[in-house]
Amino acid sequence: MSHKKTKISDFGEKKLITRIIKKTRQLQSDYFSNDLHIMNSLGDDAALIDFGSNYLVASSDMLMETSHFPKQMKAREIGWKIVTVNISDLAAMGAYPTGFLVSMGLPKEMDIDFFDEMVDGILEACKYYNLPLIGGDTNESPQLVLDGTALGKVDKKKVLMKSEAEKGDLLAVTGPLGLAAAGFEFLLSENYPEIKSKKSKNSENLKKTLRLVTKHAFKPKARLNEGILATQFDQIKGATDITDGLVSELEEIINASKNSDMNSQSSIGIKIYENKIPVPPEVIEIADLFNKNPLDMALYYGEDFELLFVIKKDGIDKIKEHLNLHVLGEVTNTGFMEIVKRKGITEILPSGGYQHFID
Amino acid sequence: MSHKKTKISDFGEKKLITRIIKKTRQLQSDYFSNDLHIMNSLGDDAALIDFGSNYLVASSDMLMETSHFPKQMKAREIGWKIVTVNISDLAAMGAYPTGFLVSMGLPKEMDIDFFDEMVDGILEACKYYNLPLIGGDTNESPQLVLDGTALGKVDKKKVLMKSEAEKGDLLAVTGPLGLAAAGFEFLLSENYPEIKSKKSKNSENLKKTLRLVTKHAFKPKARLNEGILATQFDQIKGATDITDGLVSELEEIINASKNSDMNSQSSIGIKIYENKIPVPPEVIEIADLFNKNPLDMALYYGEDFELLFVIKKDGIDKIKEHLNLHVLGEVTNTGFMEIVKRKGITEILPSGGYQHFID
Repeated sequence: MSHKKTKISDFGEKKLITRIIKKTRQLQSDYFSNDLHIMNSLGDDAALIDFGSNYLVASSDMLMETSHFPKQMKAREIGWKIVTVNISDLAAMGAYPTGFLVSMGLPKEMDIDFFDEMVDGILEACKYYNLPLIGGDTNESPQLVLDGTALGKVDKKKVLMKSEAEKGDLLAVTGPLGLAAAGFEFLLSENYPEIKSKKSKNSENLKKTLRLVTKHAFKPKARLNEGILATQFDQIKGATDITDGLVSELEEIINASKNSDMNSQSSIGIKIYENKIPVPPEVIEIADLFNKNPLDMALYYGEDFELLFVIKKDGIDKIKEHLNLHVLGEVTNTGFMEIVKRKGITEILPSGGYQHFID
Repeated sequence: MSHKKTKISDFGEKKLITRIIKKTRQLQSDYFSNDLHIMNSLGDDAALIDFGSNYLVASSDMLMETSHFPKQMKAREIGWKIVTVNISDLAAMGAYPTGFLVSMGLPKEMDIDFFDEMVDGILEACKYYNLPLIGGDTNESPQLVLDGTALGKVDKKKVLMKSEAEKGDLLAVTGPLGLAAAGFEFLLSENYPEIKSKKSKNSENLKKTLRLVTKHAFKPKARLNEGILATQFDQIKGATDITDGLVSELEEIINASKNSDMNSQSSIGIKIYENKIPVPPEVIEIADLFNKNPLDMALYYGEDFELLFVIKKDGIDKIKEHLNLHVLGEVTNTGFMEIVKRKGITEILPSGGYQHFID
């Protein structure tokens, strides 16, 4: 009788990470028990380390050629992106950036011009985010791998965690949703050349749309300033970035509130409103073209470098004077996620989002 | 006429890194110009960030299956090693460890037991070095890739740089050289099964040797405590780890002194003594077995997780009471590297050491 071995693909990314966190908490409880923020930062966008009145904030994100760099992506955009994905995690904690490290796995046969442009893209992004490149490593690799580590700092009293949501709080995002998804839908489509030629024939509008969504896919901008600004408002209680998809992050907010309050009998829930979700016309245009659901692009696909804030209800008007926000729902006490559809019917919001290792 | 494109393999790792550092200094001079240590940390073992009276110390090192993990290496040893290579860079700056992040590129078909053991190896090493695992990332990858980032802190006045060497200073290492090289020579050898069987037949001594060198290759220990202790002695002026090979690092010390003193007309040089290089009998035994030069193993191969210190001559006796050191040479003003052979003849010490991207 043969015993079938269990593979990591039987788990999926989130379960693997939970597995690491559980082991880590068991073995290292003495490091984390005295500071709830530090304990909860295992599983948040970025890790926290005690540095006097500040937290040092640290986040690592890896990008691989096969998973993250479509063939149309330019070297400079690849460089830009490894900085942006990492800075977005700092932004989600409300941190000021202080330094960036990048480790590169590089194919031997890589063109030196490609390498130079990639480094230029990294430095361009570092300049944009006011972030010094301070170190890294280079290695031979069969495919291009980039791993970034962004370091920052934030006042201990002002750090933005995922775990602060309570019933009645509002949920808001910093910008439109689904644009990056539309970009990747177009770029990764088998009909790409066909649509390119359609584009070149006449439709000035489609051309503009494709330019916009491609830019959101290949050269996204992290909401660093919005994250830092958010720490100035006591009414903004928590934040996370939504690059793995909005719904995936809503679920994380529910889970984080469970972890941070072990004694709680009931769990928070979340309700969002279809007619409040900021889906721009360009997303609808692309969704139509590819026969997709624009709402799925906005809710599940991810890659939008927006922040999701948890905000005390009574603070929202004042905050909106300073931050461009789209309120799209609220925290409930149901323990699950709901969506109120356009016709007023409330449905269960299915969980989901991008995960590695899932077939 | 075809134009041959230049590949990164035409450069080699050191030139690539120099290329990045040069671009970074040009574009980001305003970040670095006001603190000589921070400026010089580009190119040192780890990067420095200003955190009040301390420096935050950060280092990233990436390991790839194809380059770094021979097939005999166990999952737990792989986990141990990604922590150790990073901690060694902190040790070389004299820093206390404060946190570790690890990004993993994992093949989908990886066995969950392998994954668990690798994570156990990471946590075992974190415990050994008193270093909390605080974050990371997981990704799908055709081959196993691990990228670690070690964070630490060190008193600004006590940081150990590569760039402080002056004529008359002594050079000393914290332990024997060549053991890891001997381990890899054995493990990567085509005669591996033959020697394994020879070993199992009789020689009790060879068995012991193979155990020792294999351990140095697969489960090395970074000299963290020695690095921290070294900061307590003003006479220890600088340090670096020698995992890329002793000679390679001697060269780095010469180069670092050039960078830190632009006005200097002359450059420092280095002289080491063959009879002072700590080559243990086990290295000679393995070198004989494979018909290699034991001195090359000690000087060029690398993978020994020892520290190289630059020490003021008059302090050495006091320091030796507290730190186990092997003084193997001194800083000169010749501008080049020399070795005094056993017979008293002085020769030029050829440069070299492990580099990626070199055929």
